Amino acid sequence: MRETVFFTRRLQDLLPRIHDFIEQELIPLETGFHQRPLAETTALLDEKREKVKAAGLWGLHLPQQEGGLGLTLCEFGQVSEVLALAPFYGHYTFNCQAPDIGNMELISKFGSAEIKSKFLHPLMEGKIRSCFSMTEPEFAGSNPTRMATTAMREGNEYVINGHKWFTSSADGADFAVVMAVTNPEAPPHQRASMLIVPTNAPGFIHERNIPVFGESGSGWFSHAEIRYQNCRVPVSHLIGEEGAGFRLAQERLGPGRIHHCMRWIGIAEKAFDMLCRRASSREIEENVLLGEKQFIQGFIAESRIEIDAARLLVLNTAHTIDIHGAAQVRNQISGIKLFVANMMLRVLDRAIQVHGALGVTDDIILSAIYRHERGARIWDGADEVHKQNLALSILKIYGLDVKKKTREANAAKIQSHQK
Amino acid sequence: MRETVFFTRRLQDLLPRIHDFIEQELIPLETGFHQRPLAETTALLDEKREKVKAAGLWGLHLPQQEGGLGLTLCEFGQVSEVLALAPFYGHYTFNCQAPDIGNMELISKFGSAEIKSKFLHPLMEGKIRSCFSMTEPEFAGSNPTRMATTAMREGNEYVINGHKWFTSSADGADFAVVMAVTNPEAPPHQRASMLIVPTNAPGFIHERNIPVFGESGSGWFSHAEIRYQNCRVPVSHLIGEEGAGFRLAQERLGPGRIHHCMRWIGIAEKAFDMLCRRASSREIEENVLLGEKQFIQGFIAESRIEIDAARLLVLNTAHTIDIHGAAQVRNQISGIKLFVANMMLRVLDRAIQVHGALGVTDDIILSAIYRHERGARIWDGADEVHKQNLALSILKIYGLDVKKKTREANAAKIQSHQK
Amino acid sequence: MRETVFFTRRLQDLLPRIHDFIEQELIPLETGFHQRPLAETTALLDEKREKVKAAGLWGLHLPQQEGGLGLTLCEFGQVSEVLALAPFYGHYTFNCQAPDIGNMELISKFGSAEIKSKFLHPLMEGKIRSCFSMTEPEFAGSNPTRMATTAMREGNEYVINGHKWFTSSADGADFAVVMAVTNPEAPPHQRASMLIVPTNAPGFIHERNIPVFGESGSGWFSHAEIRYQNCRVPVSHLIGEEGAGFRLAQERLGPGRIHHCMRWIGIAEKAFDMLCRRASSREIEENVLLGEKQFIQGFIAESRIEIDAARLLVLNTAHTIDIHGAAQVRNQISGIKLFVANMMLRVLDRAIQVHGALGVTDDIILSAIYRHERGARIWDGADEVHKQNLALSILKIYGLDVKKKTREANAAKIQSHQK
Amino acid sequence: MRETVFFTRRLQDLLPRIHDFIEQELIPLETGFHQRPLAETTALLDEKREKVKAAGLWGLHLPQQEGGLGLTLCEFGQVSEVLALAPFYGHYTFNCQAPDIGNMELISKFGSAEIKSKFLHPLMEGKIRSCFSMTEPEFAGSNPTRMATTAMREGNEYVINGHKWFTSSADGADFAVVMAVTNPEAPPHQRASMLIVPTNAPGFIHERNIPVFGESGSGWFSHAEIRYQNCRVPVSHLIGEEGAGFRLAQERLGPGRIHHCMRWIGIAEKAFDMLCRRASSREIEENVLLGEKQFIQGFIAESRIEIDAARLLVLNTAHTIDIHGAAQVRNQISGIKLFVANMMLRVLDRAIQVHGALGVTDDIILSAIYRHERGARIWDGADEVHKQNLALSILKIYGLDVKKKTREANAAKIQSHQK
Repeated sequence: MRETVFFTRRLQDLLPRIHDFIEQELIPLETGFHQRPLAETTALLDEKREKVKAAGLWGLHLPQQEGGLGLTLCEFGQVSEVLALAPFYGHYTFNCQAPDIGNMELISKFGSAEIKSKFLHPLMEGKIRSCFSMTEPEFAGSNPTRMATTAMREGNEYVINGHKWFTSSADGADFAVVMAVTNPEAPPHQRASMLIVPTNAPGFIHERNIPVFGESGSGWFSHAEIRYQNCRVPVSHLIGEEGAGFRLAQERLGPGRIHHCMRWIGIAEKAFDMLCRRASSREIEENVLLGEKQFIQGFIAESRIEIDAARLLVLNTAHTIDIHGAAQVRNQISGIKLFVANMMLRVLDRAIQVHGALGVTDDIILSAIYRHERGARIWDGADEVHKQNLALSILKIYGLDVKKKTREANAAKIQSHQK
Repeated sequence: MRETVFFTRRLQDLLPRIHDFIEQELIPLETGFHQRPLAETTALLDEKREKVKAAGLWGLHLPQQEGGLGLTLCEFGQVSEVLALAPFYGHYTFNCQAPDIGNMELISKFGSAEIKSKFLHPLMEGKIRSCFSMTEPEFAGSNPTRMATTAMREGNEYVINGHKWFTSSADGADFAVVMAVTNPEAPPHQRASMLIVPTNAPGFIHERNIPVFGESGSGWFSHAEIRYQNCRVPVSHLIGEEGAGFRLAQERLGPGRIHHCMRWIGIAEKAFDMLCRRASSREIEENVLLGEKQFIQGFIAESRIEIDAARLLVLNTAHTIDIHGAAQVRNQISGIKLFVANMMLRVLDRAIQVHGALGVTDDIILSAIYRHERGARIWDGADEVHKQNLALSILKIYGLDVKKKTREANAAKIQSHQK
Repeated sequence: MRETVFFTRRLQDLLPRIHDFIEQELIPLETGFHQRPLAETTALLDEKREKVKAAGLWGLHLPQQEGGLGLTLCEFGQVSEVLALAPFYGHYTFNCQAPDIGNMELISKFGSAEIKSKFLHPLMEGKIRSCFSMTEPEFAGSNPTRMATTAMREGNEYVINGHKWFTSSADGADFAVVMAVTNPEAPPHQRASMLIVPTNAPGFIHERNIPVFGESGSGWFSHAEIRYQNCRVPVSHLIGEEGAGFRLAQERLGPGRIHHCMRWIGIAEKAFDMLCRRASSREIEENVLLGEKQFIQGFIAESRIEIDAARLLVLNTAHTIDIHGAAQVRNQISGIKLFVANMMLRVLDRAIQVHGALGVTDDIILSAIYRHERGARIWDGADEVHKQNLALSILKIYGLDVKKKTREANAAKIQSHQK
Repeated sequence: MRETVFFTRRLQDLLPRIHDFIEQELIPLETGFHQRPLAETTALLDEKREKVKAAGLWGLHLPQQEGGLGLTLCEFGQVSEVLALAPFYGHYTFNCQAPDIGNMELISKFGSAEIKSKFLHPLMEGKIRSCFSMTEPEFAGSNPTRMATTAMREGNEYVINGHKWFTSSADGADFAVVMAVTNPEAPPHQRASMLIVPTNAPGFIHERNIPVFGESGSGWFSHAEIRYQNCRVPVSHLIGEEGAGFRLAQERLGPGRIHHCMRWIGIAEKAFDMLCRRASSREIEENVLLGEKQFIQGFIAESRIEIDAARLLVLNTAHTIDIHGAAQVRNQISGIKLFVANMMLRVLDRAIQVHGALGVTDDIILSAIYRHERGARIWDGADEVHKQNLALSILKIYGLDVKKKTREANAAKIQSHQK
């Protein structure tokens, strides 16, 4: 944790405690992460969860009315960074891993009392897990208005049909928050809704955990492919209003982006720390350490600056959200995703490189992190999408509204065909 | 000016006024900058200086006891960014151009009463100009302890002999602050002193204004090569103590780095603005504007993020200096120089590229800025030096003290030769 | 000159002779290039031309029937690289500078006997100079089918009206090859023609030499802005057929691209050589030379590989043109322009950086070369255009014809408006 | 396969046949590569080997006297590229995978008749496999003169003790070629020898297959960690002379580098092909394909140029080796390794990115290739080592012999300690 202008008084007390917990309780579990089955690891982590509770560190992300500390987004971001120093364990142990944290925020804000008592509270207590089912293999994930999954109302139920993938942590989850089209005739951004679907509902078919970079994983450490075949849920499982799905997804986006980015920054700090340890201890020639070589010094300097820049960008954005709301920083939210994901992967890659052959082995954790995080430049909007979106919103200020121009051109085309 | 967490209440009033002044009074002078002789431009700017005074905007960088506003470094940095929107005129018109601003700070802190009345006050009033004479062509500029210029004491005088270059704005200046070795036998960092040398002193020889990227310039818009040939100044012209030269240079460094970096950020914002204007107005094919092309969007997105990152890095550093002093951020001061200089040149280059053939002409100002600023990656420590220094200071924390190791190896070598 | 598989027996004799000439006769003239007026330099070079003739090295680019050596394109490319080791003087002295060389090729192939005797022969003898007038400030230069200059036939004359710029070397040239629309109703690619316009024709108005990166230049060392106001030329001045302008421009393109690219490679080799000399001689700390630093070694290694890669790409393309003609390598011609121009500017920039403050001065030639060559990434098709074109031609092989799709969409739009 | 100047008449016949074989026999096996156990795959490939033999394509890399075609290195390189279009299967099926191919070349050149009949011939027939045991975890792999493994002569035997890793394909191999110090008192480059060690020799301990990027692999698809504990082999197992190990390693290097680089180029071509297929078929918005986006076009254009450049660099080097021998191109051999490994990983990364979420899954082969090839920038000399070596050899031409300077400084240091 590097102090910036965003470091607050209460973090002064909180962060070192979390930092120590991560170092003493979780980092040691990283040894052998690769051999140990997930079930065994989960059992170990569940014990650690009790310690978290005992230390009064449970529910750090929750608002005060839900029993949390009511940290600002900017503050919790800094917590998230520290948790990520144990990238595979930290967020799970503190019960604020994605997508549970996003689902908690969402249901807490928009769920009915019934939904809250049935799904939110056990989730907050860490008794159950959840997943979020939005992306479809058939459509480019970057456009939430293109979606084939439907939830058609029949009496008091929605009947869901569709095909999703990258529904992370679905394996073993109790429920999914599913994005589906309920109002196909509405304007594009008002077609979809969000529904809670218990994973034991008939028609919820867990097809497989998708093998990603060589690993299918299991439990909360996996990405599932799901089919919805006439899967029925009561209408009371609707979150918010019908047609609000896209708006809720947007709502989820701002804080979610901050969480992810700060997690990536924590990962980058971990990789940077490993890089520096290696550089200052590995002999490359007789009596010459790696760190004496300028190429390695270049890796260190560039990584240090880029991580610091990333943190300031994200925290300044979080701070603005705290004060003005997420709508004010749509631009910046695209920008930080792009910058931070790429920065993290660069730093990871440099850390691997500095470890030489050891770097690609699972004797250390770096290549495993790389495998798990390469997707950062893809999911939740690929680099290319964010780059374009950021630029388009800037060009609009300069009077060039590309999206509008495209819409008008398309409309003209359709008119032309209709004539 | 993009608001960040560092935007203070008094900037809220101040910055828009400065911004308007720059836009209305100075930017119009950019038309024809290339044809107009400097003397003519200076006359125009000197009129503007009166307007600055009338508007109560004179001396923004000065502490309150010198009649200034007592802005923090972090606040003045944000002023400096806005001034740089007219990169060739802003700082001059507000009398806070380098090296005058650095000399003012230095003399204000360390000058005797005599020196202050003779040199500082007319400088603050804009009646005279000054220069700073440190770099020598024979030695790599990045190491202030390697220096051939000497100032030997003879009675009540120092006799200076040496060869300097890139003594910016020497042409027409009233005095130079000169770095010279007064104590050759002292430890390396205590050998040099800073002296005030009037440019009309016998033995102060202005050899030429160095042609840089095709232009020799003149007056405050030039870099001189100077010979000191038995040039005599009274000992009272010493700034601070004998042997304090290196320490004063360091002192100068922190704020100076912030000023420069924020000026570069202002330049980058100007280039970015020109880039976006061009992208949103230039037709590349029938009915297709440049800005509709993703390559151009990529330029815009990357520039936006990089400029924002740069600003946060610099202002966070300035803020830390304001609170904890410059010694705390030696690392960051290397880091921001490296990051910001490179960022600025990239953004300038993209802006040139987006203007096509027009971009390389002097019909617009971009290539002139590039020519004047390419040196940013060289002077005041080349990229490579900053990269190394930043890394070395990090590695030291990890227990590898490369500089010490080198010193010890050299000492061993010398011992070996002596035996 | 680095030998590759493309090094032929006759180059074995030729290249060292040219290399020596450049080194002994032209490089010495680089000292003071910045101070000496062009007229004076030209006089010196004209003397050197006599030596070239005396050495039997005149007209190296010409086919045998025009008295040349009949070198292949691939061979002449390698000559061009060596000439570029004196980048401002080499091609001029050997009378194969652009645009004269392209005009010679063009007229030699497509000019009438009358045109040849009047324009080609004095050009080949170095008695006159010529220019090429295509780009218009109002239109993106990358699309030769968008052009406002017209040449309307009236009786036995064409009457030309239009506005051109970057008509290089127009100042002092005897004639221009002008691209103008003669057949506005024809399909886009058959609208323009190429005409020879004597620069003393009434209505040929040389407005100015455009200041580029701070320098307007003069004579063959300049880029002019030209107005054509009812400028009349006899119809016999047409090159090839009416409407063939675009095809001739394409014809010109292949060899022209090779010439340019090899010239840039020569420039890169020159910069690389200067970089290595500096690295192996400049002391950066006591007893430590620049070249001992890995950052500098990185510059050297990357430059070496990139230059070698560039040369092979260009020569392999030239070789293919020699065997199969330029139509076969449209792709590669886009690719090499992009790769080589960027490579050259990177190497130049590194060479500047390694020279420190000296690098930005005109005491050495590097920054002057940079200023003159930055446009390489813009003219003759900007990077972005070549990148797109290369990709589109590849995607077409994969069944995606983007240009066709766009044409069809535009046609549909027009139809829609017409209804 | 893209034709270049290096495409010979016999390749004209050969390459298309190999290409077809790869496409029809091997690419189909890539489906499900991830699920199928290696033993099963090996059985399938062994059947294909029979087809290779039947088609007269067995032993393409062998000299004529060994029953091969006697292809030049430059020709076989082009074969190797095509084999790599099935990166996991091609070389194995044609019995020219590393390290077998290198061992065959080595033994064929330097092995005694006894060794040849015992080890080389069954290897050439594909009846046994081999491995190459050089790298040690305790020492930076880039310096073959730093080595802890010893082979001490006792009577008619060498007794080997040491610790090796990344002994690729050791699992299931019949013998290892082991690099060990036999003459510790000799000058550094004459200390080591190469020995053949049967893997069933007592004291040859296969500790594990190292998990690399998440996968330990098995058989020829693995990297082993080996201990040699008093492992005894007869002195007749020496390859070449005692102390010749380093020289043999160098000998091995040139052709080995070409083989690797061409394999990587084949991999890059495969990734490029997948990238283009995706770009030309994936809808990103309604009626808009990925390939219509300039960012993707940028990936395509840059990849195309970089692959082509890489191929020309490698084949030109191979060609030079064919004519002048490997000693002439030490520089280039460092350069191509650096350039090609990085190029391949960039192209792979772009191909992954263009496939979106699918790109990181094992439903396609790209991320698996990335995992297996990330080490390319590390083993066989890390990027940083090659960059430095290439630069040092260039600087030596300019009179700066850094290695010599370091040796002399070290010698002085030792002298100083001794006094």
